[in-house]
Amino acid sequence: MSLETPSAVVTAGAAVFAESLVGQAVETVPVAWRPPAGDPAALAAVMGDRRRPGANARAVEAMLATRARLVDVLPAAQVLHLERGELLHAGPPVTWERTSGPMRGALVGALLLEGSADSPEAAERLLRAGAVSWEPCHARGAVGPMAGVVSPSMWMFCLRDEATGHESWCSLNEGLGKVLRYGAYGKEVIDRLQWMGAVLGPLLQHAVRATGPVDVTALVAQMVQMGDEGHNRNRAGTLMFLRELLPALIGSGFPTADVSDAVRFVSGNDHFFLNLVMPTCKLMSLAAAGVPGSSVVTVMSRNGTDFGIQTSGTGERWFTAPANTPEGLFLGGYGPEDANPDIGDSAITETAGLGGMSMATAPAIVRLVGGSVADALATTQRMYDLTVTENPAFAIPVLEFRGAPTGIDVTSVVRSRVLPQINTGMAGRVAGTGQVGAGLVTPPMGCFTQALDALAASVAPPDMRRPGPG
Amino acid sequence: MSLETPSAVVTAGAAVFAESLVGQAVETVPVAWRPPAGDPAALAAVMGDRRRPGANARAVEAMLATRARLVDVLPAAQVLHLERGELLHAGPPVTWERTSGPMRGALVGALLLEGSADSPEAAERLLRAGAVSWEPCHARGAVGPMAGVVSPSMWMFCLRDEATGHESWCSLNEGLGKVLRYGAYGKEVIDRLQWMGAVLGPLLQHAVRATGPVDVTALVAQMVQMGDEGHNRNRAGTLMFLRELLPALIGSGFPTADVSDAVRFVSGNDHFFLNLVMPTCKLMSLAAAGVPGSSVVTVMSRNGTDFGIQTSGTGERWFTAPANTPEGLFLGGYGPEDANPDIGDSAITETAGLGGMSMATAPAIVRLVGGSVADALATTQRMYDLTVTENPAFAIPVLEFRGAPTGIDVTSVVRSRVLPQINTGMAGRVAGTGQVGAGLVTPPMGCFTQALDALAASVAPPDMRRPGPG
Repeated sequence: MSLETPSAVVTAGAAVFAESLVGQAVETVPVAWRPPAGDPAALAAVMGDRRRPGANARAVEAMLATRARLVDVLPAAQVLHLERGELLHAGPPVTWERTSGPMRGALVGALLLEGSADSPEAAERLLRAGAVSWEPCHARGAVGPMAGVVSPSMWMFCLRDEATGHESWCSLNEGLGKVLRYGAYGKEVIDRLQWMGAVLGPLLQHAVRATGPVDVTALVAQMVQMGDEGHNRNRAGTLMFLRELLPALIGSGFPTADVSDAVRFVSGNDHFFLNLVMPTCKLMSLAAAGVPGSSVVTVMSRNGTDFGIQTSGTGERWFTAPANTPEGLFLGGYGPEDANPDIGDSAITETAGLGGMSMATAPAIVRLVGGSVADALATTQRMYDLTVTENPAFAIPVLEFRGAPTGIDVTSVVRSRVLPQINTGMAGRVAGTGQVGAGLVTPPMGCFTQALDALAASVAPPDMRRPGPG
Repeated sequence: MSLETPSAVVTAGAAVFAESLVGQAVETVPVAWRPPAGDPAALAAVMGDRRRPGANARAVEAMLATRARLVDVLPAAQVLHLERGELLHAGPPVTWERTSGPMRGALVGALLLEGSADSPEAAERLLRAGAVSWEPCHARGAVGPMAGVVSPSMWMFCLRDEATGHESWCSLNEGLGKVLRYGAYGKEVIDRLQWMGAVLGPLLQHAVRATGPVDVTALVAQMVQMGDEGHNRNRAGTLMFLRELLPALIGSGFPTADVSDAVRFVSGNDHFFLNLVMPTCKLMSLAAAGVPGSSVVTVMSRNGTDFGIQTSGTGERWFTAPANTPEGLFLGGYGPEDANPDIGDSAITETAGLGGMSMATAPAIVRLVGGSVADALATTQRMYDLTVTENPAFAIPVLEFRGAPTGIDVTSVVRSRVLPQINTGMAGRVAGTGQVGAGLVTPPMGCFTQALDALAASVAPPDMRRPGPG
């Protein structure tokens, strides 16, 4: 730099320092840089891990190569070997004392459904007494929206990726409003679940078996071209899924009234397909899991109390922090004070590049979750800064068919302090309430800084005996 | 302007004049203005017509107030009183000598279907000899995609706007490839049409009657939020329409194989719903028609030879000029030399603000018709300059839910020389070929300048006896 060049000061962070310089007539160049979150030494160790680039590439390649097919519909007792007194739930593990209202409501409802208790009070006593065990869906390769509670009699979609042999499962979607997954357990909730077990499950099983494996990944690719982001908009997906099964449903030989009821139930619930998108994303996550040195996020999930993530390089270990509460739009007379903190395994959609990560493809979503269309477009653009790759199979038309931002890198989140965007439903804080709205939320940064520390701990000290490259 | 203000020259039109000034160091401000098309005196007369603002407002208000409901499905013989030897076709009137290949093919096929001839040659002899009459669908309040040929035995969707009592009709969509509306008339075409007459028509009639009137306007509003522009993308619309009828189809009591075949046929054809969007748009057009002094376009239509328009203020009079040939993407080994000039009543969708006018809502369409996503977004933005209003019922999410540009004003087209954008299928030039591609096209300006002249002729000379306003 020659002495003639005017000098300037690059400023970042708190504006007061730059303003002081401006006051002294010093030229300033403000930049958006912020210091990274978390431990700088851990970040340096993970960023410098020579395994990382290759490991992350392998993880996201495996994600993109996944082809999820719906191969069967079976009760959880049969396919997940879930026994009486065993329940699954969304998010990382949680004790009864720390469970949120909607999670408690759903656990109570599941025991009523199974006939393990004849009143909510009796069910709660069993839960409090430790007479029932519950563990995360993710621990069994399954996923559940909102409370995500699965009990033995519930029928599950069974998805499989032929190339890897991985399987994943999700219950059948109940619809909106007063439903178990939002923590409601009244009579209409239990009646509906009983009908789903007696009629819908067996009929879907027949239709799937008669149709043959349904390529759910292909349906997700199409829905992304039809304004669905796969988390809070699943309209086109639901209709296309129904279309696949229709001939088999019609020709099932089941009573016409049952077929009619089932078709009405599925087609009247724009979220029915969410429970197929989720295990599709879980299969992508399973494919990416367990690559030593990879800093790619493989699970993001919430139990209504804590948010938990897992990364490829750290296996099934959870990194948790208190869940944030979504902000958005409310149903009826509900308001922010009614909303429970973030809940559900459905953030597996964002983990796989859909949902909030791909909001740009679903501008109509802002009418459900809040914000402007410009925000939705900008959000997806921003998410590309956090991800390792783009998924050409999930092409976003309005971004000139750019692929969904896929494979969240823990180091990118920590360095930029930009958090993955999640679109989500909002459950009522009080058990038994049901859904109160839908909105936007982010994971707590603490999950990512903890994951970073664990990744750093896994980095071998530099090996002095090996020659450097070149 | 003080003498100190630097002077500049506003330039428009051919760049050579501006360049000459620039060469003389004169500051220039280029503007996009171009001289209007057509007769300046006619433009001045129509622009100065004091009836026009109110008339146009009334015309578009009536368009926006239309609520199209599917009320029945009936054979054309019954509902349009079409008799043996009578056919309808797309576009303005045309003589046999001037008909294009695909129109000839479709007329021939219709006579084969009706059993009026037992070979294509015999059918052509009948047509050439004047033994068969044909008139535009629009003359009967109906619309037909591509060749738009309707014969007495074909089943028609019957749509009605309760508030006005207007009715409109359209045949059932045959699917893609070798189909009558693209001018094919081989055995598979006739067999399919016979099945549609024997099975599909009666089954849909039963389902519509059992379901009750289907609010097609509401389905169009939803499809616009799901990436369909209603002309060349009707995927979500088709699925939602099927959803409406499913319970009635399943409970119809018709043979299961027939119901299954019908559901497979409808759900396997992403364009099935086009034949419901079109009469919905025709009802909007009928509502806007016949307002004295209105320069709003109420019909845009093509017969494969001529493009014709009608305006509200000039009633059912056609203004025609030779049709342009679409440019776009071709199927298989076909190329530009195989394409017939623009054909079909389907430009009624653009007349009502959908199709090319609302391309921005369907960015994925560029994979079918060509162009870039940026073009699609810019096209809709440009179309707002041609239209009198925006339709809040057809809200385009990516444009922050701005309503579809609706009510093309002849004077805006003539003044700006910007033509309405049409997305369209392309028929093979040779009778019997079928579809060769899809693309983009505009109407010829001649239609609009002729309409302008006619509108000018309808303007009363200024009445000197009446006091001015105020």
